[in-house]
Amino acid sequence: MELGMIGLGKMGANMVERLQQGGHKITGFDPSAEARKAVQVAGAGAVDSLAALVGALPTPRVLWMMVPSGKITDDTVDALLLLLAKGDTVIDGGNSNYKDTLRRAKLYAEHGLGYVDCGTSGGVWGLKEGYSMMIGGDGQVVEALRPIFETLAPAKDQGWGRVGPVGSGHFTKMVHNGIEYGMMQAYAEGFSILKHKVDFGLDLHQVGEIWRYGSVVRSWLLDLATDALGKNPNMEGVAPYVVDSGEGRWTVDAAMELNVSAPVITLSLMERFRSRDDDSFADKLLSSLRNEFGGHAIKTE
Amino acid sequence: MELGMIGLGKMGANMVERLQQGGHKITGFDPSAEARKAVQVAGAGAVDSLAALVGALPTPRVLWMMVPSGKITDDTVDALLLLLAKGDTVIDGGNSNYKDTLRRAKLYAEHGLGYVDCGTSGGVWGLKEGYSMMIGGDGQVVEALRPIFETLAPAKDQGWGRVGPVGSGHFTKMVHNGIEYGMMQAYAEGFSILKHKVDFGLDLHQVGEIWRYGSVVRSWLLDLATDALGKNPNMEGVAPYVVDSGEGRWTVDAAMELNVSAPVITLSLMERFRSRDDDSFADKLLSSLRNEFGGHAIKTE
Amino acid sequence: MELGMIGLGKMGANMVERLQQGGHKITGFDPSAEARKAVQVAGAGAVDSLAALVGALPTPRVLWMMVPSGKITDDTVDALLLLLAKGDTVIDGGNSNYKDTLRRAKLYAEHGLGYVDCGTSGGVWGLKEGYSMMIGGDGQVVEALRPIFETLAPAKDQGWGRVGPVGSGHFTKMVHNGIEYGMMQAYAEGFSILKHKVDFGLDLHQVGEIWRYGSVVRSWLLDLATDALGKNPNMEGVAPYVVDSGEGRWTVDAAMELNVSAPVITLSLMERFRSRDDDSFADKLLSSLRNEFGGHAIKTE
Amino acid sequence: MELGMIGLGKMGANMVERLQQGGHKITGFDPSAEARKAVQVAGAGAVDSLAALVGALPTPRVLWMMVPSGKITDDTVDALLLLLAKGDTVIDGGNSNYKDTLRRAKLYAEHGLGYVDCGTSGGVWGLKEGYSMMIGGDGQVVEALRPIFETLAPAKDQGWGRVGPVGSGHFTKMVHNGIEYGMMQAYAEGFSILKHKVDFGLDLHQVGEIWRYGSVVRSWLLDLATDALGKNPNMEGVAPYVVDSGEGRWTVDAAMELNVSAPVITLSLMERFRSRDDDSFADKLLSSLRNEFGGHAIKTE
Repeated sequence: MELGMIGLGKMGANMVERLQQGGHKITGFDPSAEARKAVQVAGAGAVDSLAALVGALPTPRVLWMMVPSGKITDDTVDALLLLLAKGDTVIDGGNSNYKDTLRRAKLYAEHGLGYVDCGTSGGVWGLKEGYSMMIGGDGQVVEALRPIFETLAPAKDQGWGRVGPVGSGHFTKMVHNGIEYGMMQAYAEGFSILKHKVDFGLDLHQVGEIWRYGSVVRSWLLDLATDALGKNPNMEGVAPYVVDSGEGRWTVDAAMELNVSAPVITLSLMERFRSRDDDSFADKLLSSLRNEFGGHAIKTE
Repeated sequence: MELGMIGLGKMGANMVERLQQGGHKITGFDPSAEARKAVQVAGAGAVDSLAALVGALPTPRVLWMMVPSGKITDDTVDALLLLLAKGDTVIDGGNSNYKDTLRRAKLYAEHGLGYVDCGTSGGVWGLKEGYSMMIGGDGQVVEALRPIFETLAPAKDQGWGRVGPVGSGHFTKMVHNGIEYGMMQAYAEGFSILKHKVDFGLDLHQVGEIWRYGSVVRSWLLDLATDALGKNPNMEGVAPYVVDSGEGRWTVDAAMELNVSAPVITLSLMERFRSRDDDSFADKLLSSLRNEFGGHAIKTE
Repeated sequence: MELGMIGLGKMGANMVERLQQGGHKITGFDPSAEARKAVQVAGAGAVDSLAALVGALPTPRVLWMMVPSGKITDDTVDALLLLLAKGDTVIDGGNSNYKDTLRRAKLYAEHGLGYVDCGTSGGVWGLKEGYSMMIGGDGQVVEALRPIFETLAPAKDQGWGRVGPVGSGHFTKMVHNGIEYGMMQAYAEGFSILKHKVDFGLDLHQVGEIWRYGSVVRSWLLDLATDALGKNPNMEGVAPYVVDSGEGRWTVDAAMELNVSAPVITLSLMERFRSRDDDSFADKLLSSLRNEFGGHAIKTE
Repeated sequence: MELGMIGLGKMGANMVERLQQGGHKITGFDPSAEARKAVQVAGAGAVDSLAALVGALPTPRVLWMMVPSGKITDDTVDALLLLLAKGDTVIDGGNSNYKDTLRRAKLYAEHGLGYVDCGTSGGVWGLKEGYSMMIGGDGQVVEALRPIFETLAPAKDQGWGRVGPVGSGHFTKMVHNGIEYGMMQAYAEGFSILKHKVDFGLDLHQVGEIWRYGSVVRSWLLDLATDALGKNPNMEGVAPYVVDSGEGRWTVDAAMELNVSAPVITLSLMERFRSRDDDSFADKLLSSLRNEFGGHAIKTE
């Protein structure tokens, strides 16, 4: 198929390469000349404006957005609305909030444009191993995109599917990331307990390697954690500072809206906040409060 | 009544003073000459050995231990066993683990000695405001000690009671402290949220003052938090480092033994551990793991 | 002062009564004739429409809304906008989300109307004990309302104050309720642990009574919990079903927006969700998963 | 090698079969005639007493215990102590608490007997896929057992290793299970959120299948959860009742002893307690408390 890729960053460029390898004809757009050049090396076309991209594609057009969620996605969605024609389809492959997706899809539907949300997992490994894709949108529209998904996925019939109407793809991906937070935190806590049991002198990389084969906790995240522990067993030079990128919060929002108890996912997010606060006011107040009632000494800074 | 007080530290000395003021005749023992002198100033007697203390009391003797839980309590219990006579009673007013109390009481019972556990709350304010006392032990033995408890309590009939057999006093006090952890953490989180809402420029001391009167969250701990916030609104010089002294852990142990879910008490304890780890291995591993799968930048130290 | 009270439910009617007792002249509005009659008995006036209420008040008018947050507040705010004149002031004494308050206040400011948010705590006890009030709004506008707040508060100078600009009152009240969730959960967990320690045969009402005097955990909520345990020691007939009314969720939202870790407040909310789900899909899946990997028996329904 | 297997239940019998297939000569012991018969069918020998087992093995003997942790392990350890001779080795392949292991190993060392702890993961799938084994013990003793571990593991050099001195194997397995609790809870929460988003009509089995390929959350537990969701999408007939078998509690104990914050592992355990309490006293008290201060209606049973 022919497809226009909007955004040739880390994720977008990898997808272009995988699609080209799969026999598709991709034209990419990115404001960065360097990013455009990189995909051209991989055999894809590249243009320097959205208008040029739309002009370069046969109708009905198919465009895949792989840009940061939020304002850039909104700007792109708005700009495309003016450039596209009835029957064209835009796929949002990024990590948009599903509520934004619902809003954008409604707007596109009013203009006879197809809008598909594709929650995409796999990170930087997707080029090699394929992407896991949770897709929301009209059944016929998604079906027409089948060749694209079959190429991006790990295998023709694996790792992708239309999970429901528009919005459901991003919703499912959001929950996927919430689960990811919980799993990561579980591993981090476990390895931390092992690390602190100094009298056993455990080699965490070795433990990870053992667990990778045959254990109940084997997983791809464990493969990666084990790799990280092999490269840097004591995490030297790494700050205990954990970023979050939105999906965890949205999952907590969803849990609250749906009245679902999700303590582990929520706590995993909270721990990330805590990691970024090395001067906790709450803890200072707790220490002062202990002093107030018990006369316990306050540790000073 | 006549009573021997073992341990003339912060808590013990205050109790001696309150008991003397209440008309009791107290003889204290502490290895520190300074501590002994302090209670003598308050009108109590003071001796420099357990043997001297036992010798100074009329039979049947009543002794109150106010010493750190653990080894010192065990040593004292063992030493007294050799010095006391049938009919004497020892009260453990400290924060002993109730399982240790059960063990010690069994030993004492075998020797015809009374053993009473008194979970004591009130901290450094007890001298002025009286102590809240949860008492475990034989009903008749406890009844014989009534004049002591009536004096130590905030009022004759308030703030004290025999809650059950030996061990139950320390068990109840342990749970009291677990609740205390949860309440403190709730306030600390709330004030922290207020603090971070910088655009409202809230005065936390003022908010605490408002809440102290008529609000649902009014409490003695709030009185103290408000006082602390008045004295040091930004908690300057206070390290975000929160000590725990055992009862919280024992409460979690008890919850696990009894199969009771206690997420808030448990999390409050965990947050104290977290406060004391400013170089979290778990968080470093999380940051590395994000880099592994998503190529996300690692913040370096 | 003269004041119009909008909403004569449980809270509004009590406030009317307290204000009348304090020498103010109150006219109330409520669509229910019964509710109107009740405040008339207490000496207040009562009318059957917002227009009549506005007509009955001297200018500049002062109106206090005590209606459910959300749609009814919005409808009232919109209707008053058409009825009021420059210089009039509306106080929202309900549990509105502070973001809604900011939106409404902006609208009112554009019309030269005063808008004040008053987070009100104290529940059904406020009539007798006074209300704790966290007030947001323009300094001069709030100052002009001083006689009202002095009467509603527990004492002239206690339990109320302007904490900041408009919105800050409801924000502070929201966090107050978040803390309340955490405190309640801490007590509930503690009493539950005591309850499950059956071999000690503890009397929870007695324990609560002891803690009320001199202990670190004494509080108004403990007074109420103790009262509840006295009236119904085994909570007979009470379903283990805990409602939440929004402020807890908003506090979690705020924590997430401000990147503040608030595990205890959040978990307290989650436990309420959990209490209302007696057929947890998550737990069923966990049970099935244990069977999948370990062959462990599944408990059937 | 020749090895005696003590305990021919689900796990032990599978191990015998895998070892026989690997060319080892196994003699099993189990009090159940049926269990003995089953391994005989698989080509192994079987005897009806520990003494007979010890008599049937060449010296130095190697015995593998695969019995429930706690009393049965203690009884077996004590009985073997009287039957074995210097140089013999006992491997505890069950889920013993590592503190019990340390105690037992000390006793065995005093008698010149080898004691090895092997934390074994893989559940009922181990026969087919091999077991993940975390081994603690003397280096030379473990090395001598290499042929056994190479056969039981998924591959000769994968999924097993000596992680440290005696006790460290069970400690590592304990933490493995703690992680397992956290991962399971993360999946359960995520699927529960998806389930409650009824307007998207998601097919959880399909979502699981998509995630299995290429996603960040792919894992063996996800494979199993997806299988479970395929067989019983609505978890019909499954009670929301989740058992725990000890390792989770021990992991929390270890976290407390080591002062490591482990909120997610701990909460996962607490949720299991919660799942087994369908009449929560804590929640009843919360509901009553809401009634006390706010006059909120209590849901009755």
